[in-house]
Amino acid sequence: MASKGKGSRTERELVHLFNQTGTWSAIRVAGSGLTKDPNPDVLAGNKKRHLAIECKSIKGISKYLYPEEIEQIINFANKFGAEPWIAIRFNHKGWYFLKTEDLEKTKSSNLVINLKLAEEKGLKFEDIVKEGDENARTNKI
Amino acid sequence: MASKGKGSRTERELVHLFNQTGTWSAIRVAGSGLTKDPNPDVLAGNKKRHLAIECKSIKGISKYLYPEEIEQIINFANKFGAEPWIAIRFNHKGWYFLKTEDLEKTKSSNLVINLKLAEEKGLKFEDIVKEGDENARTNKI
Repeated sequence: MASKGKGSRTERELVHLFNQTGTWSAIRVAGSGLTKDPNPDVLAGNKKRHLAIECKSIKGISKYLYPEEIEQIINFANKFGAEPWIAIRFNHKGWYFLKTEDLEKTKSSNLVINLKLAEEKGLKFEDIVKEGDENARTNKI
Repeated sequence: MASKGKGSRTERELVHLFNQTGTWSAIRVAGSGLTKDPNPDVLAGNKKRHLAIECKSIKGISKYLYPEEIEQIINFANKFGAEPWIAIRFNHKGWYFLKTEDLEKTKSSNLVINLKLAEEKGLKFEDIVKEGDENARTNKI
């Protein structure tokens, strides 16, 4: 189990990134991972979009996730009216945002994210915040 | 200054009320009131609406609020894409939800909520959760 302290620092970093954009606000969810309610770690929103984010940070190249963890984030997001995302921070590579359906299944039915998958299917922070911006959408090639 | 413990209990009660509806989800914001970011205490959402809520609980009949506190909740809500609300819990009377513009100004430019104002202008919990329900809207007289 990851230390709570490290998780909180990672979440704070992500909240800070969103708040710095000037057009998004983000907050850390109190007691996420501790309560029986299936809560995400971070919620971010702007006038058009709301993101329910499960935050992960890894030093290596891959991270395993339990299917239940992903189900919970999807259930919360559906009810709250938000998009479910997994945000993963690779050392020296920064943040990647993955859709829950883009995670790879292992033989033992767990889910895995690795750097290759993140680079192929993930969005960088700059991309995810631009997606809510109408100009960015219009200018998209 | 209100004790943090009591504030958290009040927030947990409100989160629980929303989660019990089956159609809303709510979370407590980590470190609200502690960080320099102008965060609400609770965020609640369903598929149609998002509420940024400042929670208060009082034993007496009135509660004073600083205008800065209200400005902060409005600013957060505008950026996050949520409606700003003040939820106040009166002993033996339950929860009332007030719009920020319905608060009364005192002579010293602070803002005040009392039970009379809450009863006149506020919504009860059942009303605020119904407002996001299309049937409730349609059936509204």
